[in-house]
Amino acid sequence: MPIRLAVVGLGLIGGSLARALREAGAVASVSGYDSDPAQVEAALALGVIDRAGVDAADAVRGADVAVIAVPVLATAAAFAACKPGLSEATILTDVGSTKQSVLAAVCRVFGHVPPRFVAAHPIAGTEKSGVANAQPDLFRDHRLILTPHATQDVEALATVERLWAATGARVVKMDAARHDSIFAATSHLPHLLAYSFVDMLDQLEGADADIFPNAGGGFRDFTRIASSSPRMWHDILRANAEPVAALLRKQIDELTRLHGMIERGDWDAMQAVFERARAARERHLTRIE
Amino acid sequence: MPIRLAVVGLGLIGGSLARALREAGAVASVSGYDSDPAQVEAALALGVIDRAGVDAADAVRGADVAVIAVPVLATAAAFAACKPGLSEATILTDVGSTKQSVLAAVCRVFGHVPPRFVAAHPIAGTEKSGVANAQPDLFRDHRLILTPHATQDVEALATVERLWAATGARVVKMDAARHDSIFAATSHLPHLLAYSFVDMLDQLEGADADIFPNAGGGFRDFTRIASSSPRMWHDILRANAEPVAALLRKQIDELTRLHGMIERGDWDAMQAVFERARAARERHLTRIE
Repeated sequence: MPIRLAVVGLGLIGGSLARALREAGAVASVSGYDSDPAQVEAALALGVIDRAGVDAADAVRGADVAVIAVPVLATAAAFAACKPGLSEATILTDVGSTKQSVLAAVCRVFGHVPPRFVAAHPIAGTEKSGVANAQPDLFRDHRLILTPHATQDVEALATVERLWAATGARVVKMDAARHDSIFAATSHLPHLLAYSFVDMLDQLEGADADIFPNAGGGFRDFTRIASSSPRMWHDILRANAEPVAALLRKQIDELTRLHGMIERGDWDAMQAVFERARAARERHLTRIE
Repeated sequence: MPIRLAVVGLGLIGGSLARALREAGAVASVSGYDSDPAQVEAALALGVIDRAGVDAADAVRGADVAVIAVPVLATAAAFAACKPGLSEATILTDVGSTKQSVLAAVCRVFGHVPPRFVAAHPIAGTEKSGVANAQPDLFRDHRLILTPHATQDVEALATVERLWAATGARVVKMDAARHDSIFAATSHLPHLLAYSFVDMLDQLEGADADIFPNAGGGFRDFTRIASSSPRMWHDILRANAEPVAALLRKQIDELTRLHGMIERGDWDAMQAVFERARAARERHLTRIE
C-alpha cells in the first residue's frame, strides 16, 4: 500500500529518494522541508514534493515514514526539529554516511534509540548536490546499507527495506561500527586524499599557468570526488573521525615507505606494491564497473 | 604526402597512433615490431601494421618516421636496436611519459641527441594496455607535448607536429625539464597515490570479505589508474624519480597536517582545505570534463 512520505532535507539524496518512490508507485503523497527556501521552491516546482511544511515538524506530521536527509552533523538538530510532529506510529529513518554518530544523535534527542528508528545509508550519489540534480534512478543497482540496532522494531525495518528495494537498490544489513570502519576505508579516506592532493597541487608554482592545464583523464577521475560538497564531507569525516584518523595514519606510513623505496632505488619493491594493488582492484572490478 | 611509418612497440599508444594516421590518410605504409610475438600477430591481424620486421632495425629500415613506443626504461634499448636500420633521413621520435630521461637515453645510444630526433608525449591513454585496445580516436582533442632540444632539426619537428595534428591532437611545445615537473604533479604522483591506497586497503582485515565489496562509484573513479600497467608505471616513476619524490614528500607533509587537524579537532582548517581544493578543481574542470 502506498505510504505518506516526508522528506526533511531536500538535497540530491532526499530528492532522488522521493522521485524514485514516486516513479515506483510506492508513495501516496510526499511532504518536505528544507532550511534553504530555494531548495523547497525547486522541490515543489520539479514535483519532487506535493506539500512543503512550514517547518520540519509540520512536514513530518501525518507521515507514515519520515526520512531525514541532511548533512550528517545536522542530523541531531533535524531529529529535534521533527520531534513535535512525530507520532508513535511514524517510522523515522535517515540516509547518513556514518551510522554510529547518527545512532548517538537519535539517542541524545529521544533519550533512547526509538524502536521505529531505522538507520540507513545508500551507497550512491555524485559530486553534484541539490534537489535540481535529483534522479529517480540514482539508487538502482547500488547498495543500501541498513544497520539494525539493539531495540529495532522488525516491522519498521521491513518497511524501510521494502521502500529501498522499490528504488532498485540492493539492501544489505550490517553492524553500525563495522559499517563505519568499512566506509572510512572505501569512501571517507579517498575523499580526504583527493582533496589534499588537489590542494597541494594548487599551492605549487605554476598551478594555474601550466600544471592544471596539463591534467588529463587520469587526473580527472582521480580527483572527481574533490568536487564534492566541502560541508558534507567536513561533517562525514568529523562524525567518523577515529576510524578515518587511524587509516590516514596507515596511509601516511605506506607513502613514507614508498618514499623510502624511491630514495633507496628499491624499484622492485615499488613495482610489487603496484602489482598487488592492481590485482586487488581487478579482483573486485567487475562488480563496480 | 603520405609517409612510410614504422612503429617499434605495438601497444596501446603505438597501435592507436598507427590506426589514427591510417584513418587520416597520412601514411603510405606501416611496418612494426614488438618483442612480444603475440602483439605483432595481433597488430597484423587487426590491420594496424602492413609488415612485421624480423627485428626493430628491420622494421624501421626505409621508414620516413620511426616511432618508439615502448615503456620508458626500454627506450635506450629500443633506440640501440633500431640504430642499424636508421638512415640519415629517418626522423626518430618517441611517446614516452618522461622527457629528460628519453633525451638522456638517445644521447647515450647515439653519443649526442640527433637533430632529427623529436621528443613527444601524447596526454592520452587508458588503464588498458596492448594493441588489441588501440583506438584511432585515442588522441583526438587531447594534448600532445613536444619538447624540442638544443640541436633540434626544425623540419623534423614540423613533420612530427603535422602527424600528431592529423590524429586530432592539440600540439603544445615546452621545455623537457618543465614537462617532467608538470607531469610528476598531474600524472605520476596520482598513480603512486592510487596504487598505494588500494594496496593499503588490501592489507586490512576483511579486505576481500566486506571492504572492497562495499566500494562505490567514488572508489571506482579514484582508483581507476591503479589498474594501469605496473611495469609501465614502474618505468615512469623510476625515470622521473627526483620530481616525484619531492612531490610525494610534500603530499606526506600535507596529509600529516590534515591528520593533525583531525587529532586536534580543527575542523574549520580541514574544511578550508576541502574548499580550496574544490575551487581549484572547478576552475579547471570545464577543460577536462
